Amino acid sequence: MSGEAGRRTIRLTLAYEGTDFAGWQRQPGERTVQAAVEDALATIDERPVGVVAAGRTDAGVHALAQVASATVVNRLPPEVLRRAINVRLPPDVRVTAVTEAPPGFNARHDARAKVYRYTIAVGDDPGPFVRRVVWHIPYRLDVPAMARAAALLVGEHDFSSFQATGGDVKTSIRRLLVSQLADDPGPPRLVRYTATGTGFLRHMVRNIVGTLVDVGRHRWAAEDILGILASKSRQRAGATAPPEGLVLAKVIY
Amino acid sequence: MSGEAGRRTIRLTLAYEGTDFAGWQRQPGERTVQAAVEDALATIDERPVGVVAAGRTDAGVHALAQVASATVVNRLPPEVLRRAINVRLPPDVRVTAVTEAPPGFNARHDARAKVYRYTIAVGDDPGPFVRRVVWHIPYRLDVPAMARAAALLVGEHDFSSFQATGGDVKTSIRRLLVSQLADDPGPPRLVRYTATGTGFLRHMVRNIVGTLVDVGRHRWAAEDILGILASKSRQRAGATAPPEGLVLAKVIY
Repeated sequence: MSGEAGRRTIRLTLAYEGTDFAGWQRQPGERTVQAAVEDALATIDERPVGVVAAGRTDAGVHALAQVASATVVNRLPPEVLRRAINVRLPPDVRVTAVTEAPPGFNARHDARAKVYRYTIAVGDDPGPFVRRVVWHIPYRLDVPAMARAAALLVGEHDFSSFQATGGDVKTSIRRLLVSQLADDPGPPRLVRYTATGTGFLRHMVRNIVGTLVDVGRHRWAAEDILGILASKSRQRAGATAPPEGLVLAKVIY
Repeated sequence: MSGEAGRRTIRLTLAYEGTDFAGWQRQPGERTVQAAVEDALATIDERPVGVVAAGRTDAGVHALAQVASATVVNRLPPEVLRRAINVRLPPDVRVTAVTEAPPGFNARHDARAKVYRYTIAVGDDPGPFVRRVVWHIPYRLDVPAMARAAALLVGEHDFSSFQATGGDVKTSIRRLLVSQLADDPGPPRLVRYTATGTGFLRHMVRNIVGTLVDVGRHRWAAEDILGILASKSRQRAGATAPPEGLVLAKVIY
């Protein structure tokens, strides 16, 4: 228990399949993860509850371990609360953990880093069971070249070239601790891009992946990604990769 | 090429997620896998095409490698034909292989054995990504007892107790070559029942699994499954396990 009048801050870990959600953030008339979780907690608390997520995933993007914070008044033990929330959630979102958090814990502002993973199924159709969580590219890709390009993005850079147009953030400088590609021969063959960063711009991972695919198709050489980065021009980078291949894998505090 | 007037017999291997299908078999007004595949082939052949499957999976049951046969008049090379069919199929069913078959090949009658797998997620919720292909049982199960009971079903038996009521087959004697349970600690923890048999009665695997779960809940001892088998009474066995945990894994010719 923490805070006044029986209020306490909780930390939720969430897994969801983003396919049928219009993203994390509550929007009028849309089916969103935030609305689902807030509505479940509001039923338990019998009053409105606001939930803050570490990363506001876009429509169609998945999460293995999104983290969210909320202030609640119910006194249920964490594991009981977890089950109580889950029975009120649709099957495509699950709370995998609930813990007590220090007062003032904010899942978004307190996150030190986030890990995103993007999966491309290369060549043969990956089949009906993984189709919702991959981008299927039926043509050949030069994966070693893509891996070299990916590695060049590690470090602190101005990622303007990989930022969704229309963003209004203060700075487009971000730091990638990990930017690497792994090739799982399968079948199905799965090429996985992992990006760990202290912060991400809107569409940043998907724009990086779109650009890596251009490298894989030999539209550019691997080293050209440095010029694209330096240009600070969204027009120079590749198209935005589709959301279904992206998953928020982990949040580090 | 085989047969008269350019007709040839082909063998198709199919993977499908059964969730949104009313099973394999074509039925008026229902979305079925057979109708999807027949309609795709009919478009290519520009005439009606009948497709026969090794196992007529029920509504909601999946397939990793269903096998089907058809007689077609098109002259497309197998890999070209495979792709042509796939572009005409919805995303929850894929043709993973097409090969030329001997004239008269019939996927159903020529099948020597089929392998079914049933997956139970025990305990914690398995999460949004596997929910469509498992039966989630939140309570504890005595898995070693279930494994002992499963093993007792190997061999030739009258499986009347595990047959859907209303069936009209000539004999309910079937032979199980494999009947075993494997426990994958996970997470998520997955208990997998595998049955390989020369033939299966309607709902046979799901009724066996329902009975194994009763053993896991200590409603019966493992050895009681022999008495249930000997009784030849559907009333003695457990409830039919839900379809979503079942997959037709392989067909042997």
